[in-house]
Amino acid sequence: MDLLSIKDPAFLKKMSNEELEVLSQDIRKFLIEKLSETGGHIGPNLGVVELTIALHKCFDSPKDKILWDVGHQSYVHKILTGRANQFDTLRQYKGLCGFPKMIESEHDVWETGHSSTSLSAAMGMAIARDLKKEKSFVVPVIGDGALTGGMALEALNHIGHEKKNMIVVLNDNEMSIAPNVGALHNVLGRLRTAGKYQWAKDELELLLKKIPAVGGKIASTAERIKDSLKYLLVSGVFFEELGFTYLGPIDGHDYEALFENLAYAKKTEGPVLLHVITKKGKGYEPAENDKVGTWHGTGAYKIETGDFIKPVDAPPAWSKLVSETVRRIAREDERVVAITPAMPVGSKLEGFASEFPDRMYDVGIAEQHAATVAAGLATQKMKPFLAIYSTFLQRAYDQVVHDICRQNLNVFFGIDRAGLVGADGETHQGVFDIAFLRHIPNLVLMMPKDENEGQHMVNTAIKYDDGPIAMRFPRGNGLGVPMDKELKEIPIGTWEVLKEGTDGVILTFGTTIPMALKATEILEKQGISIKVVNARFIKPLDEKMLLELFELNIPILTLEEAVLQGGFGSSVLEFAADQGYHHLQIDRMGIPDKFIEHGSVNELLEEIGLTTEDVVKKLQSLARKKQKRA
Amino acid sequence: MDLLSIKDPAFLKKMSNEELEVLSQDIRKFLIEKLSETGGHIGPNLGVVELTIALHKCFDSPKDKILWDVGHQSYVHKILTGRANQFDTLRQYKGLCGFPKMIESEHDVWETGHSSTSLSAAMGMAIARDLKKEKSFVVPVIGDGALTGGMALEALNHIGHEKKNMIVVLNDNEMSIAPNVGALHNVLGRLRTAGKYQWAKDELELLLKKIPAVGGKIASTAERIKDSLKYLLVSGVFFEELGFTYLGPIDGHDYEALFENLAYAKKTEGPVLLHVITKKGKGYEPAENDKVGTWHGTGAYKIETGDFIKPVDAPPAWSKLVSETVRRIAREDERVVAITPAMPVGSKLEGFASEFPDRMYDVGIAEQHAATVAAGLATQKMKPFLAIYSTFLQRAYDQVVHDICRQNLNVFFGIDRAGLVGADGETHQGVFDIAFLRHIPNLVLMMPKDENEGQHMVNTAIKYDDGPIAMRFPRGNGLGVPMDKELKEIPIGTWEVLKEGTDGVILTFGTTIPMALKATEILEKQGISIKVVNARFIKPLDEKMLLELFELNIPILTLEEAVLQGGFGSSVLEFAADQGYHHLQIDRMGIPDKFIEHGSVNELLEEIGLTTEDVVKKLQSLARKKQKRA
Repeated sequence: MDLLSIKDPAFLKKMSNEELEVLSQDIRKFLIEKLSETGGHIGPNLGVVELTIALHKCFDSPKDKILWDVGHQSYVHKILTGRANQFDTLRQYKGLCGFPKMIESEHDVWETGHSSTSLSAAMGMAIARDLKKEKSFVVPVIGDGALTGGMALEALNHIGHEKKNMIVVLNDNEMSIAPNVGALHNVLGRLRTAGKYQWAKDELELLLKKIPAVGGKIASTAERIKDSLKYLLVSGVFFEELGFTYLGPIDGHDYEALFENLAYAKKTEGPVLLHVITKKGKGYEPAENDKVGTWHGTGAYKIETGDFIKPVDAPPAWSKLVSETVRRIAREDERVVAITPAMPVGSKLEGFASEFPDRMYDVGIAEQHAATVAAGLATQKMKPFLAIYSTFLQRAYDQVVHDICRQNLNVFFGIDRAGLVGADGETHQGVFDIAFLRHIPNLVLMMPKDENEGQHMVNTAIKYDDGPIAMRFPRGNGLGVPMDKELKEIPIGTWEVLKEGTDGVILTFGTTIPMALKATEILEKQGISIKVVNARFIKPLDEKMLLELFELNIPILTLEEAVLQGGFGSSVLEFAADQGYHHLQIDRMGIPDKFIEHGSVNELLEEIGLTTEDVVKKLQSLARKKQKRA
Repeated sequence: MDLLSIKDPAFLKKMSNEELEVLSQDIRKFLIEKLSETGGHIGPNLGVVELTIALHKCFDSPKDKILWDVGHQSYVHKILTGRANQFDTLRQYKGLCGFPKMIESEHDVWETGHSSTSLSAAMGMAIARDLKKEKSFVVPVIGDGALTGGMALEALNHIGHEKKNMIVVLNDNEMSIAPNVGALHNVLGRLRTAGKYQWAKDELELLLKKIPAVGGKIASTAERIKDSLKYLLVSGVFFEELGFTYLGPIDGHDYEALFENLAYAKKTEGPVLLHVITKKGKGYEPAENDKVGTWHGTGAYKIETGDFIKPVDAPPAWSKLVSETVRRIAREDERVVAITPAMPVGSKLEGFASEFPDRMYDVGIAEQHAATVAAGLATQKMKPFLAIYSTFLQRAYDQVVHDICRQNLNVFFGIDRAGLVGADGETHQGVFDIAFLRHIPNLVLMMPKDENEGQHMVNTAIKYDDGPIAMRFPRGNGLGVPMDKELKEIPIGTWEVLKEGTDGVILTFGTTIPMALKATEILEKQGISIKVVNARFIKPLDEKMLLELFELNIPILTLEEAVLQGGFGSSVLEFAADQGYHHLQIDRMGIPDKFIEHGSVNELLEEIGLTTEDVVKKLQSLARKKQKRA
């Protein structure tokens, strides 16, 4: 059928299972074609075609609330709710968001990007429904990977206790982003294979009938046997213990099974957990055969071959540079242990893992636990390297404060995807880390200007034994600079002057350094001479250099790809005020006080006024003011 | 025995159970007496006397690592490790810390204050031990309440998966801080009463022997029955499913049971969960009979009667003022729903709960879930009031960013215990919230000057429908000011001038306002006239008033009981710089960049230079500088 003509999911109600099969095919074809051009979360979405269709046929969205945990598997939902015609713009600036978005559709009742939030939100919605005495279904759809996140477990515990009506769909694709980790996964594994025990139950019922009624005790024992078998053999004892009615596991690509079980779930009082087995990448061979998570989220690709279309000869990716440098140092330093919360592929830790399988721990989607495992290691004089994305480190803020920095433990944070991340948009921008880390006592925070300095910083961090230390680095590739063979240590809290100048100074670090250098080149031609400082230590500041700069009494511009409120620029203002330099002109450029949506990094920088031209203009005005004053 | 003579736990090794019983009595008597004077966590510690003694007899601390989750139950441990003679100074300035503290003793291997961290830390220690090929036991002791915290559940999942040797002692006192919440509690409840099913198992084994071997299928069914009964009847299926060997439940006051099970646990490969049932407050009647958690942590009390020694006629406690005002408004506004993560007593929500049982949710120790339940409620046009301590809100930082503020949902945060909290010390100081909240877009953050303004702010927050809004308020009591009968709304982002002055201005809010007023009175007598502004909105700033103040060109002092880095003062510096007021003298006073230990709030303020005298001195110097310039 013509997917572009879909306005809302009502048309599904009248369709036969055969027609739905055809629709599923059409949607798969559509997704494979569209995403081959835009990129996106192809694997997860191919896995939930039938499930999404079944949910929209069985429930009345938006009266019934369907919540997509993590949200990157909402593409089919977007097609069924009238957004197929926007897929050309998927994840592009001002285009269709890759995650649920309330302003796009009334059917998007909950926005997600970080995992494991849907159950808690669903609980809030269920409480509201019952207080308002409304009748509707609340249906969070959560993956097996997201279920290991602490807040999802907190929610399961609370939902099971409160016994509110809710249908939790556990979308079990045996692999979240990376192959799953944790005991819960083993529980799910046992449930998945439970079908083969069905015969045992049948046999047992025969057996029980043969037991003579020899008195109350035996009879009740027999009852108990039935009960216990119900638990062990044919149902999800784990979830039943938590207070859920467990249904499944069923084949998530089988409409009949889906409809039968959803109908049963709708009639059941209290919380239901419907365990659905799906195959990530279903219907597209390269994605179906993916064993490590390469096809979880991709860029553009060639449909026929499944080859990724990538820029040729790109400089090394930041993640790889960092992880490989850690690996190199780990050869000499036995203290080094790497920890990742479910991001071994994204953090490019495959090499480290294969060389040091005993010294690499993927703890699953569990950022809090990851941070405190690192703390525990550090108490034993090990050197944990916590590889974590900036946006996901937000989940471990309290652990960073309470467990790591308060105890002043030698944890090395590799903060990946720091700064704007582009297509993933506002849930994934790594723009808060400076503001939420800078005020924590004992923490050293740094960012390298290029991959060569990056490798030296990794070395510095691992050699550093005075407390926690973090290196933030951006998504994407390095600059392609030559790499030193020997690793050096960079003195903590030292900046470096990249370019001399007399009319003003830019203090900046990381991704904005090339912008600053380019801007000063342009200004040079206009006779404005600006000094550029690589402020590679965000904390502690290079106080010696700052005092020298303050004495020059020239305008200072701080420039950062991070939020301005409480950011690096503020720390310069603070230091100047504390030191009594009240007359200085210090201006700040950075990310304003709003959430930044998706788009290419360059488009976003333009939107917020953080381009070379903006820096040029700012410095022109500063220099003019200075001339006026002089 | 003379507890003061204890140097380390080695003496326990030779003691008989009878001698240990006497020791237990001595320790209980000691605790009841000492804490009647100092206050402290009496209930939890009376509950773990035998357990702590048993652990120190069975293990070799500090080679074996005993980790006290939450840490407030470590008093007996402190006595056994040579610190009985410091109990007169418990929780006092420079005295014995109420939580484990590495600098106090090599036996304190992990510092805690926030709950649910011990399992993750233990996992890090176990990994380190195995990498170093050392032999030792890692023994986290975690309460049933702390087990509902997401990170503890993340850790259980990971530990069960990795199968490392570890002995998790589940100290199940059926009540953490408040009576426990959640399905997990029901699981524990069933396990606690599992003893009575023992007969069923015995009966069954008889029964099984009678079943004729009629072929492979039936035989294996019978095997399966045994297996499943093992799960259901006599063991903790929940924990077994997660990969633990489950032992218990046993009586945590019975030395024989403790020694037998600990010995078995030491011989067991892989992770063990030893389920120990204890009675909070054991041996002191008032604490034993406590049903709601009053005796969890207390101030001084009369031993004979269990009456608390409190200042007479104290003004209303802040927690009560806030919760009761919410309750009052909830009578008219059906949207209001209160949520607390395990702090119904601390947050004084008992009245609200009894009047609106359907509109009050205690979700257990689960701050992340609590925040996102609030978000879910807000999507349905309800008005959630999230009652949470400043220090525990740290756990929900990502949920505040990603779920609440990003979606601009109308959640009202009542941030309790903001600022220095005193005796609980560095794990509990509520000094980071401004710095970790101020940079989050869409959030309104305020703090009242007194309880009358407090009630109006609560009203303002509930009426406010433009996004998330937070009111922080301190531990302890209000000022005793007269209360308006009618509730008002305070225009968002407006400050108020409390006192006029011409030589300088103090911008401050909340607890530091009395200090500022007192300082200006002193200065008045010296001929220095200082304006005092109640900067009750920390975000957004009162930009109109600020611009007027900037135009006065007089020195500005910001004063806050919160960290200086990225705090309120920084936001004033930022605004001045952004508006081009580069010549202004703006100085900041607040909490320096270090963790602040325990002591009375006044002692701590003195230590960090945040007293009336310090403010006077600062303003004298500012005024002098101004005169020089003029």
